[in-house]
Amino acid sequence: MTAALVPELKPSSRLLLGPGPSMVHPRVLRAMSTPLLGHLDPEFLVIMNEVQGMLRAVFQTENAFTIAISGTGSAGMEAALVNVVEPGDKVIVGVSGVFGTRLADIVGRCGGQLVKLEVPWGQIFPLERIQEALAKEGKVKAVALVHAETSTGAQQPLEGLGMVCRDHGALLVVDAVTSLGGVPVEVDRHGIDVCYSGTQKCLSCPPGLAPLTFSLRALQAVRARKTKVQSWYLDVSMIADYWAEGKRAYHHTAPISMVYALREALRIVLEEGLEPRFARHRRHSAAVMAGLAQLGCTPNAAEGHRLPSLNCVKTPEGVDEAPIRKALLADAGIEIGGGLGPLVGKIWRIGLMGESSRQEHVFAVLAALEQALAKAGRKVRPGEAMAAAAAQYAR
Amino acid sequence: MTAALVPELKPSSRLLLGPGPSMVHPRVLRAMSTPLLGHLDPEFLVIMNEVQGMLRAVFQTENAFTIAISGTGSAGMEAALVNVVEPGDKVIVGVSGVFGTRLADIVGRCGGQLVKLEVPWGQIFPLERIQEALAKEGKVKAVALVHAETSTGAQQPLEGLGMVCRDHGALLVVDAVTSLGGVPVEVDRHGIDVCYSGTQKCLSCPPGLAPLTFSLRALQAVRARKTKVQSWYLDVSMIADYWAEGKRAYHHTAPISMVYALREALRIVLEEGLEPRFARHRRHSAAVMAGLAQLGCTPNAAEGHRLPSLNCVKTPEGVDEAPIRKALLADAGIEIGGGLGPLVGKIWRIGLMGESSRQEHVFAVLAALEQALAKAGRKVRPGEAMAAAAAQYAR
Repeated sequence: MTAALVPELKPSSRLLLGPGPSMVHPRVLRAMSTPLLGHLDPEFLVIMNEVQGMLRAVFQTENAFTIAISGTGSAGMEAALVNVVEPGDKVIVGVSGVFGTRLADIVGRCGGQLVKLEVPWGQIFPLERIQEALAKEGKVKAVALVHAETSTGAQQPLEGLGMVCRDHGALLVVDAVTSLGGVPVEVDRHGIDVCYSGTQKCLSCPPGLAPLTFSLRALQAVRARKTKVQSWYLDVSMIADYWAEGKRAYHHTAPISMVYALREALRIVLEEGLEPRFARHRRHSAAVMAGLAQLGCTPNAAEGHRLPSLNCVKTPEGVDEAPIRKALLADAGIEIGGGLGPLVGKIWRIGLMGESSRQEHVFAVLAALEQALAKAGRKVRPGEAMAAAAAQYAR
Repeated sequence: MTAALVPELKPSSRLLLGPGPSMVHPRVLRAMSTPLLGHLDPEFLVIMNEVQGMLRAVFQTENAFTIAISGTGSAGMEAALVNVVEPGDKVIVGVSGVFGTRLADIVGRCGGQLVKLEVPWGQIFPLERIQEALAKEGKVKAVALVHAETSTGAQQPLEGLGMVCRDHGALLVVDAVTSLGGVPVEVDRHGIDVCYSGTQKCLSCPPGLAPLTFSLRALQAVRARKTKVQSWYLDVSMIADYWAEGKRAYHHTAPISMVYALREALRIVLEEGLEPRFARHRRHSAAVMAGLAQLGCTPNAAEGHRLPSLNCVKTPEGVDEAPIRKALLADAGIEIGGGLGPLVGKIWRIGLMGESSRQEHVFAVLAALEQALAKAGRKVRPGEAMAAAAAQYAR
């Protein structure tokens, strides 16, 4: 391999409307390309504080331990579990998609005793189901649920869960990878003990960091462990000393440029304000879903529990979906997602997250889908999907 | 926390001559700020291939499994060990600094049976020492050594080690965090089975990825495991399917912007060529060490085993070192590193890695150190350190 074989970086321009990454604001790209400070530079320590403060605002928490893990969202998931779960600990995991399945897998790798609750993919867990499981299982260390199931587009209600877990002495662990910054994630109000996310979804920052927050109760559980955390890299007790103001004990080298990017992305989130941002996600979701309905696409997730950040729909009857996605990418430069696991070939996942959640993107994806479906021989009245979206906006 | 509290990102300009991050070439910053492709976009898959090819060139290996782990160098260390070490496996670890200590810690977290070899910090392990340990210990799964001990500045010779390990059926795991791209790391010639690095040292890329390579023997050991790898995020068998051409099975979302950055950094490394790059690191190291000697700084690592990428010296007798480093940062914007662990207050670590390894940086740090020492009341003849460096360059 010689350098001559690798040409200049010239990727095509893309409109990212898949399950992540989402579009990144030019301000974030610019911040990311700022020349680096050292990771123990006094100025960088201020930046870490600022990021922590803004993450607390977005997580709607006062948790002191609110940081960004130096890895992608999946590293956040692993950090959440390896710190909490010791060998033999009983953990209830709600599985209704790929990411619940992954939680269950990691509990096993921690030596935890897995209690797997299941509902069909696309459904959610009613509060009573969790309550019953807790009542039945005796001593449970934690309950882990996916708030926004990226593989199905379902949004798990969180109301009341924290209280129920607290009553049974269990910690509540919540995956907010595809919700944080686009859908309310109220860590303190809902009594969530451990919550993690990724940067490349509703925060509209490139992937590479995993926002993570631990309640005091969760940290106490970590401190009361009898065994070392199995991961050195994700050991929260050591990472806490790295992020703690006044301590800053060297642990590992933070991904400085990614922290710059996240800082700018969080500034943009807070400039907009959480409530207007959530409303924006709902507005464009309603519009795109109205348009998709015209194209013969029905919602995948249960009614009343559909994520506005990731719009998952069954593909139109009789349409081979993969060539349509390929055409979208090739002809319009638009990325949307297909299904995972049992949903391969059956759904589309259209992300309107963060910077991707805009009116012009709704019309862009509907127009491109119309054209691709027409090209594939499906009867489509030109403009009908966009008209339906426009009507929804006009409501 | 409101956004108004967090001002525009305006970090001071720094000359990074510490133990990492090193200076980043503007081309790398520019590549990093390129708008994103999706991580499963066909164009991104080509980019992953290109990065793999260039990493093989830099690691000097033909290993098919040569990738970048989505975390910093410490994640690379953890990935190296958690995949290889199963509970009960005997692992010989050479400890002569912070990073050997960390290897030993992680072996314990994997449930491995640790055989800790020690030499005083700054020394290296002679081949015979490893040979003896292997002969004595019976069945050993792996020998783990730090090629470039970032806490002491010592460079562990690798000659012959692979053969010795192979003779005893042990895998050779090598930490090349502070050497890859600045000091020869010949994975295939030295029979290294697992080798990892970081991006923010001699590759002069921001931190956030960990180059990692596994030999076929190492992969076979992973496949022959009786237990699941304890880390889902770092499970090499799944990551291999994500990086494998033609497979690209979704595992986690790669940190796309960091991959762009690493791609450009590797292009720069290969444009320069490995041999000229290694020679450059040696040349500037010799010059800075000559200058430092004039300031009363003696080398920390054993003679003949000093890293040219990270120049570690004992601080001048009777000098309180921390204020000198603070003055360097405040007055000259230059970052150098202090000691870690037992070496706190006793050594300086001056990194001349990648883009940081340049003649003007050698003179800059020597001049600033002279001035800071003079200000602190030490007798210094102005220019003598720079003269010594210049004389070394003239040789």
